[in-house]
Amino acid sequence: MDIASFVTSLLTSFVIFVVLVLVFAWLSRRPGNAPVYYPSVLLRGLDPWEGRGKGTRSPVGWVRQAFSAPEADVIAAGGVDAAVYLVFLSSVLAILVLSGIVLLPVLLPLAATDHALEDPSGSRNGSTSQNFTVIERLALGNVQKKSMRLWAFILSVYWVSFVTYFVLWKSYKHVSNLRAAARSSSDVKPEEFAVLVRDIPVPPPDQTIKDSVDSYFRALHPDTFYKSMVVTDNKEADKIFQEIEGHKQKIAHAEAVYAESKKANKPEGSKPTHRTGFLGLIGKKVDTIEYCNEKIKELLPKLEDEQKNTLQEKQQRAAIIFFNSRAAATSASQTLHAQLFDKWTVTEAPEPREIIWPNLPRKIYDRQIRQSVVYFIVFLTVFFYTIPITAISAVTTLEKLREKLPFLKVVVDQPAIKTVLQAYLPQLALIVFLALLPALLLFLSKSEGIPSQSHVVRAASGKYFYFIIFNVFIGFTISSSLFSALKTIINNPPGIISMLANSLPGSATFFLTFVALKFFVGYGLELSRLVPLIIFHLKKKYLCKTEDEVRAAWAPGDLGYNTRVPNDMLVVTIVLCYSVIAPLIIPFGVAYFALGWLIAKNQVLRVYVPSYESNGRMWPHMHTRVIAALMIYQATMIGVIILKLFYYSTILFPLLAISLIFAYTCHTRFYPAFAKTPLEVACQGLKETPNMGAIYTAYIPPCLKPEKLEDVDIFEDAQSRTTSRAPSF
Amino acid sequence: MDIASFVTSLLTSFVIFVVLVLVFAWLSRRPGNAPVYYPSVLLRGLDPWEGRGKGTRSPVGWVRQAFSAPEADVIAAGGVDAAVYLVFLSSVLAILVLSGIVLLPVLLPLAATDHALEDPSGSRNGSTSQNFTVIERLALGNVQKKSMRLWAFILSVYWVSFVTYFVLWKSYKHVSNLRAAARSSSDVKPEEFAVLVRDIPVPPPDQTIKDSVDSYFRALHPDTFYKSMVVTDNKEADKIFQEIEGHKQKIAHAEAVYAESKKANKPEGSKPTHRTGFLGLIGKKVDTIEYCNEKIKELLPKLEDEQKNTLQEKQQRAAIIFFNSRAAATSASQTLHAQLFDKWTVTEAPEPREIIWPNLPRKIYDRQIRQSVVYFIVFLTVFFYTIPITAISAVTTLEKLREKLPFLKVVVDQPAIKTVLQAYLPQLALIVFLALLPALLLFLSKSEGIPSQSHVVRAASGKYFYFIIFNVFIGFTISSSLFSALKTIINNPPGIISMLANSLPGSATFFLTFVALKFFVGYGLELSRLVPLIIFHLKKKYLCKTEDEVRAAWAPGDLGYNTRVPNDMLVVTIVLCYSVIAPLIIPFGVAYFALGWLIAKNQVLRVYVPSYESNGRMWPHMHTRVIAALMIYQATMIGVIILKLFYYSTILFPLLAISLIFAYTCHTRFYPAFAKTPLEVACQGLKETPNMGAIYTAYIPPCLKPEKLEDVDIFEDAQSRTTSRAPSF
Repeated sequence: MDIASFVTSLLTSFVIFVVLVLVFAWLSRRPGNAPVYYPSVLLRGLDPWEGRGKGTRSPVGWVRQAFSAPEADVIAAGGVDAAVYLVFLSSVLAILVLSGIVLLPVLLPLAATDHALEDPSGSRNGSTSQNFTVIERLALGNVQKKSMRLWAFILSVYWVSFVTYFVLWKSYKHVSNLRAAARSSSDVKPEEFAVLVRDIPVPPPDQTIKDSVDSYFRALHPDTFYKSMVVTDNKEADKIFQEIEGHKQKIAHAEAVYAESKKANKPEGSKPTHRTGFLGLIGKKVDTIEYCNEKIKELLPKLEDEQKNTLQEKQQRAAIIFFNSRAAATSASQTLHAQLFDKWTVTEAPEPREIIWPNLPRKIYDRQIRQSVVYFIVFLTVFFYTIPITAISAVTTLEKLREKLPFLKVVVDQPAIKTVLQAYLPQLALIVFLALLPALLLFLSKSEGIPSQSHVVRAASGKYFYFIIFNVFIGFTISSSLFSALKTIINNPPGIISMLANSLPGSATFFLTFVALKFFVGYGLELSRLVPLIIFHLKKKYLCKTEDEVRAAWAPGDLGYNTRVPNDMLVVTIVLCYSVIAPLIIPFGVAYFALGWLIAKNQVLRVYVPSYESNGRMWPHMHTRVIAALMIYQATMIGVIILKLFYYSTILFPLLAISLIFAYTCHTRFYPAFAKTPLEVACQGLKETPNMGAIYTAYIPPCLKPEKLEDVDIFEDAQSRTTSRAPSF
Repeated sequence: MDIASFVTSLLTSFVIFVVLVLVFAWLSRRPGNAPVYYPSVLLRGLDPWEGRGKGTRSPVGWVRQAFSAPEADVIAAGGVDAAVYLVFLSSVLAILVLSGIVLLPVLLPLAATDHALEDPSGSRNGSTSQNFTVIERLALGNVQKKSMRLWAFILSVYWVSFVTYFVLWKSYKHVSNLRAAARSSSDVKPEEFAVLVRDIPVPPPDQTIKDSVDSYFRALHPDTFYKSMVVTDNKEADKIFQEIEGHKQKIAHAEAVYAESKKANKPEGSKPTHRTGFLGLIGKKVDTIEYCNEKIKELLPKLEDEQKNTLQEKQQRAAIIFFNSRAAATSASQTLHAQLFDKWTVTEAPEPREIIWPNLPRKIYDRQIRQSVVYFIVFLTVFFYTIPITAISAVTTLEKLREKLPFLKVVVDQPAIKTVLQAYLPQLALIVFLALLPALLLFLSKSEGIPSQSHVVRAASGKYFYFIIFNVFIGFTISSSLFSALKTIINNPPGIISMLANSLPGSATFFLTFVALKFFVGYGLELSRLVPLIIFHLKKKYLCKTEDEVRAAWAPGDLGYNTRVPNDMLVVTIVLCYSVIAPLIIPFGVAYFALGWLIAKNQVLRVYVPSYESNGRMWPHMHTRVIAALMIYQATMIGVIILKLFYYSTILFPLLAISLIFAYTCHTRFYPAFAKTPLEVACQGLKETPNMGAIYTAYIPPCLKPEKLEDVDIFEDAQSRTTSRAPSF
């Protein structure tokens, strides 16, 4: 890539970014767009433009606000998980800033004043000096072999490494405290009073599973056991429940339409009707409100029957156990209960809203086998995903398409279109695959039998990380080197070594552009929320009649850690790896993470609504992967400096060992408090006496929830065959 | 080794064994020897010759008794640890018997009827056919290359492996049940009500460590916390205490001597005296009884002062915490207490008698560093122990010795003695080193900071296992191959491959003799207890005057797992590895473990007294190491069969994977119940209400123990600076 196209690409990205920011500034000030730009604020019942300081309506007001918002606000708006994500972004930012402060003033002059690229030995590559851009001149590639200047580069690697250790250590401590504070908060959270039990053994024939669970836990925790709730297979009940809900929505919609028609046409209005057949297109025409009301009346007793049946007959071998204190639940979740490992597996209970119910009853062997299979599939995907894509694009050539779908002939036979299609069909397959990959990985992680959504996201994020690091970073570097390598070998065999050392800095330009494109365009789109905006306005205008429907149209969703974190990790890896080879990449990395932090904070404060809270359990994963990136960087640097025929590069080997020791130390020091809840934390006092009934009810799936809270006892009794009841707390 | 010397060595060993067994049968029937042959029985207050079935006095009665004694008797006499050791021996026995049943009738004829050793290709080794013994003819070495007979050998490896999996699985289950039964027994054991806390943070200046421990645990376990006992540095108090004890013993001894002299000489007797100076050789002559009584009177108040001082001022940052129920202690020991990993580390408490007090207050970083250093030293010892020994024996040549110690000249200058000494000096160094090694490894393991004796023994046993496997088994095989290999390479370079395949069966004869020698002579000595017998009689005759002194003279000690288990493991490895190469080794292995089981059972029932009880925690280590031996075997067999140019040997590769999966499955399935106590087990009812005072007292070190049990509260109060006392239970 020459300097002109590099600047062009950079400028284009920048212009797009500026335009998108201006669009955002303009659109976000219009009150009608508030549900798109301030959904989180609205959901918390606040006015987007009041009480949050002046200047909100100014175009850069959001910057000031996002910048100055304290961490407590972030936690209030987006939970600890969002705060931890911001800590991750700011940690990487700190690493890059601290590295840049030393590396840029030291390494750039050292590289710029050397002449390796103009050397006689350099010109043996067959390239003349005008081929080298400014970027390449300012990089390690321009330093001559065996030059004493390489000492500065070696020491820089040490500097970057120690800066990373320092910042990560600080951050881990900070996140640990955040987590401890959240876990010891005085709010009553249902999951802190519950544990999840799986692999319940088959009960004796005269007992239901509920009975055996009760007697088991009452015997082991006589003073602290409160109640148990056996997981049921509520597919049937849920189907009926959803049907009723659907009818209720239809009634609400129809009533809104009816009321509107009254206002618009005639005083009596026109009652909305629909057809009962397929998709409302065929069958008898009926009055929607009447028909749905009748249907609901029919379904309600059915639902009740099914509820009873589900509770009694469809008990599964998993349960949620409730304790009457946080300390008791914490202690129970960490204690081995059964002599045999495949019975009564006890873990901390996930939040009710993030439980993946169908996964709970999976047996331990089932889970282990599923995990192995999923790992194997992921392994194949990471290493061989190109094979099916190549195969598909080979099969779906234009000729084949013409044969199968003759109606395309007219389009395809246009020479211009034909050329474009032929060029882009393979890429199209790749793009479709890459777009579907996060969903595929989420699905695979879910199939492992993991009980909670947050854990699934962590697992998927890990898988995506491996994919992205291997294929984008390593894949690109190797293949770009391979191609140039082949050319060099043919022309001039002994030039291969000096060429390899040069090829890594060569890829630097590509990655520079990549990072810039990513943050300018990506962040611009993220901030301006053009797609949600358009969808919201379309839906509001043509589909939504009731308040609930409008609310559903702007429901913001959560941050999507499973794709966000690996993408950031890719940039971390790239910037770290090129930080010493081509220090010019550091400002781009700083810009990426500074903008990323700012925009993510804005979005957390105003837009996204967390769908679960894992109290920062994502952090150890981020931490480990930053260290992994650091070690890739250290290994790469050893290779690069050896290629400069500078044998002091062995001085870099201890760094790998130090990284491992650092990772191990952090793991033993901080990880236990992430994997388990320390008793010290769980024993903090509560604001109020916990309402155990409400805690219990929080875990009842909506389709089984009794109408009134008082009926909870009936719900519980329905699961049991014996009459003995737990003493109410 | 030719067949004649093999048979000679075998016969010699056998004769020694028979003689020793006869000696045992004769000596053990004499009542005067009962303390040597039945110490365990005597200590349990039983009569060695009564109530244990008739025939005890017949020479083979012990065989019948040992054979028929049920496991419950073994547990009663030697604890679960001894029972688990017997399970280990019988498991290996079962593996070998089941393997032998199939391998001997199948493989021996297949090997015997082949002719590889007489082949033209075989004679290229330069060896003529009469060099091969029967053993070598009956082994894999006699099967021709690429022969279809090798299929039988491959299938045999599978058979042995699956037999091993099967037996190990059964045994692990059995041992798990033994452990669960022991842990859920209705006897009150102090360690089941206690947890060990280490890494206690520095308390605020106005609190003692005891106070901060109390307030911390009372806050976290308000209902179940009973009392705490802070570990103190009682070196000083212990010194005074030991001095007093020494004086008491002297008085008892002197009184016995005095009483004797009254009987023998004159009615008033002669009062024993001694000198107060160095070793009783110089200084003033005093009346022993008076002098000692005076000394005790002087020391007692000093001890009391020191006790108070120790309790108040010498508190260390470790403590034993007592709970008022087993379930509470179990649960607490498994729960993470502190947010920071290096504070309040909680583990199960060891038995009082096996606690290594000085290790308790070691800080976590100290422990980690010590462990790394110890591992490094062990690594050096395993791989390079020959270097210092060679160096020492090089320095301590006879010439040097003559120079340094001229008085040896007369002896050394005798030509016969000189030859012998020159030949044996290096071996002597080696023998001294090997004799000291177990003690060295125990010392090293103790230095790691491990809190309990049983854990130290397990750690030392693991280290000894690596040493012995690497140096005796692998070392011998490789060096024996290397030496012959060098010869072959010089004479006939291409013969190396066929030679290597032959050299392993060659070592078989050596190992056969080794195993036979080990069990005939080793077990003979073990059973006859000649050395303890002689020591006992000598001490009794010349030194012991009081009952206590006699008792100390025959104190039997425990089984010594730290050397016993690795030695057995070596035989397991050898026999497994040669089971298919030279199936003739199997009967020897069977004899080793059958005799071993019988004699160990006899010794457990009658001789050894366990010094601690770890409830079978040794088993997972034994189990893992048998699997390690199996995998060495499987890897060896792949190599050996590839050398036979039989390419179906790749069929053996899956076995390695299966072994790993088996090990992993066993680990996840059974290990948790060994590492932690399941709550289910701890919740079993107790026979009696636990006497918490007695439980607490059990952990008070002897030198700090108050005279009366009622003074325990004073003991506890002495540690605290505040007046608040735990509510008595």
